[in-house]
Amino acid sequence: MEKTVYLDNSSTTEICAAAKRRMNEALSGAFGNPSSLHRMGYNAESLVEETRHKIADMIGAKDEEIYFTSGGTEGNNTAIFGAAYARKKRGNRIVTTAIEHPSVLEPVKRLEEEGFEVIRIKPQSDGTISEKSIFEAVNEKTVLVSIMLVNNETGAILPVSAARRAIEKAGAPAILHCDCVQAFGKLKIKIGELGADIITASAHKIHGPKGIGFIYVKKGVTVKPLLLGGGQEKGFRSGTQSVHDIYGFCGAIEDIGDIGRNFEKTAALKDRLVNKLTESGLATVNSPEGALPYVVNVSVEGYRSETLLHFLEEENIYVSSGSACARGKGSHVLSAAGMPRSRVDSAIRVSFSRFNTGADVDAFVSALKAATASLRRVKK
Amino acid sequence: MEKTVYLDNSSTTEICAAAKRRMNEALSGAFGNPSSLHRMGYNAESLVEETRHKIADMIGAKDEEIYFTSGGTEGNNTAIFGAAYARKKRGNRIVTTAIEHPSVLEPVKRLEEEGFEVIRIKPQSDGTISEKSIFEAVNEKTVLVSIMLVNNETGAILPVSAARRAIEKAGAPAILHCDCVQAFGKLKIKIGELGADIITASAHKIHGPKGIGFIYVKKGVTVKPLLLGGGQEKGFRSGTQSVHDIYGFCGAIEDIGDIGRNFEKTAALKDRLVNKLTESGLATVNSPEGALPYVVNVSVEGYRSETLLHFLEEENIYVSSGSACARGKGSHVLSAAGMPRSRVDSAIRVSFSRFNTGADVDAFVSALKAATASLRRVKK
Repeated sequence: MEKTVYLDNSSTTEICAAAKRRMNEALSGAFGNPSSLHRMGYNAESLVEETRHKIADMIGAKDEEIYFTSGGTEGNNTAIFGAAYARKKRGNRIVTTAIEHPSVLEPVKRLEEEGFEVIRIKPQSDGTISEKSIFEAVNEKTVLVSIMLVNNETGAILPVSAARRAIEKAGAPAILHCDCVQAFGKLKIKIGELGADIITASAHKIHGPKGIGFIYVKKGVTVKPLLLGGGQEKGFRSGTQSVHDIYGFCGAIEDIGDIGRNFEKTAALKDRLVNKLTESGLATVNSPEGALPYVVNVSVEGYRSETLLHFLEEENIYVSSGSACARGKGSHVLSAAGMPRSRVDSAIRVSFSRFNTGADVDAFVSALKAATASLRRVKK
Repeated sequence: MEKTVYLDNSSTTEICAAAKRRMNEALSGAFGNPSSLHRMGYNAESLVEETRHKIADMIGAKDEEIYFTSGGTEGNNTAIFGAAYARKKRGNRIVTTAIEHPSVLEPVKRLEEEGFEVIRIKPQSDGTISEKSIFEAVNEKTVLVSIMLVNNETGAILPVSAARRAIEKAGAPAILHCDCVQAFGKLKIKIGELGADIITASAHKIHGPKGIGFIYVKKGVTVKPLLLGGGQEKGFRSGTQSVHDIYGFCGAIEDIGDIGRNFEKTAALKDRLVNKLTESGLATVNSPEGALPYVVNVSVEGYRSETLLHFLEEENIYVSSGSACARGKGSHVLSAAGMPRSRVDSAIRVSFSRFNTGADVDAFVSALKAATASLRRVKK
């Protein structure tokens, strides 16, 4: 069988050896319940706390500001509902963008049904969100601003710190939430510079296990918990902590290495890909200038994404048509940027991890050429 | 080092070899996102569906009635909030018991703050819930009845099917939720006989991984989802499924073997324990007659639970003072049954798994004897 070329890393990643090793360590050596008052509980708890410290250290937060969740979706739901309900007496407006992940957009929609006024900022034609549009949207009645750091379909980097300034300028009682699921481990996130009150991230986008993530909540910011019960995670997130997944997350973080060097390496892969695609006239790039190089969205106009995907799959090359979560629906992100239907329907997202190589890019481009040639023949 | 005698299996269990093997299979062979539209997605999805089928088959449900959650707490929160909100136009009363797990009691408390009328049925002096008290509590305005099958602190088995009859008798528009976290895999649960509309369970109580559970929702019963987003689990529970944990759950179920035989074996362990403790006059049994033999709650009056726990821990014997989730607080379960403070404060929960042996019981009893003898000396 041919080598697998996996270029769908924004959907999920392969677990790295370090993460797997940590998981097995936890499963074998520390199966206790972290809440148990005996040594086996403490042993499990110590792995949880080691991971918490590693995350806090990485983003410049305090350990007690990090809470474990079951992943990005739970984190985003907790942030959105928790912040809106905590501040609802102080205002009624929620500001977000039209290109957020469904785990932000859907909770916001429910809040809209409950009576909140929701402003969904539209991207510019290149898919980016302008600072100006954020300043226009945030008013003194805004209780929540939710804006992602990196868009999962195009890699667009959003001006999160501008949202902080907009909140201050408006004198809004708003909590600033930033979905960092696609950014964590790929951009150097420092909480102080980002200016967010809450950030959310997940392990399985950075070669850690699925089913685990964290939410950072700035000390002093009160957010209503979503899951109630035994009072784990200092009462903010009840439920027995999934120690092996948490410790796997720890391993995944240890394995990242130098974020800056990974970025440079990935930027070179993106350049290689974009050059080959544009030189050959094979595809149009949808990702905006300055996007995170890990995500490259292109359209191969005249061909449906799904058809290309399946052709590539036969060559053991895996990409996606957008986000895995949107399963077959046309991209709401590209549509929001006003791209024509023909471009939306022919979009392919290539998403890298630090383990990809130039050979992977070359294999993808060759296969895409073969796919279009073959499909053209069929059409004739 | 001495052999570890782990008798705290109602807090959590050691992962079994079968579960661990399945987890590693999933991590190595099927790391795709189950929502991805390519083969790597399908491979991951097939493990999820295999597990779903196994659970459905075990409890006599349909595959499409099973949804994966991050565990018992999320399951119970989803059930309580989801059912109450779905039916709130039809009535205002919620009936539960005073001895439920905090992941039921806390959501119910929030609903009470939001305006629901909550009836918390008190146990009888032996810790059981009478059928009569359920019939008295359920009226025609009841929209939710939440009653656990097995109490986590005493092993008391609650009359769930009586709750179904009470709902029918009252003509109530109530959804019946049953927390089966302590019962699943230890009692033969058949949905048809139990009569519940929703049940919840978790893997880590039956030698599966932490961080994964399921919620059964009877076809036709509408429950509002708690986690919104990408629409996974047919829109009822968004968030990328934790494939390795789910498949580990599958392994744990496969490894259970014969539930009836495990029960008999555990009943013999309980008899051995109770006989030794009562013959020696060392302890009083708090678990009621007919309780699930996996959980044996006893009081060693005159000694604080925590003191005994730490003494036993030094001998590598692990038990708990109540539930792991209540961490150091006096048991709300024993208190609700009207037990005197001296008995509540000296309670120890011994909880078995099918892997425990008579030698474990003997080691515990010997150590407990030594503990009380040693502590008596100190007191003098």
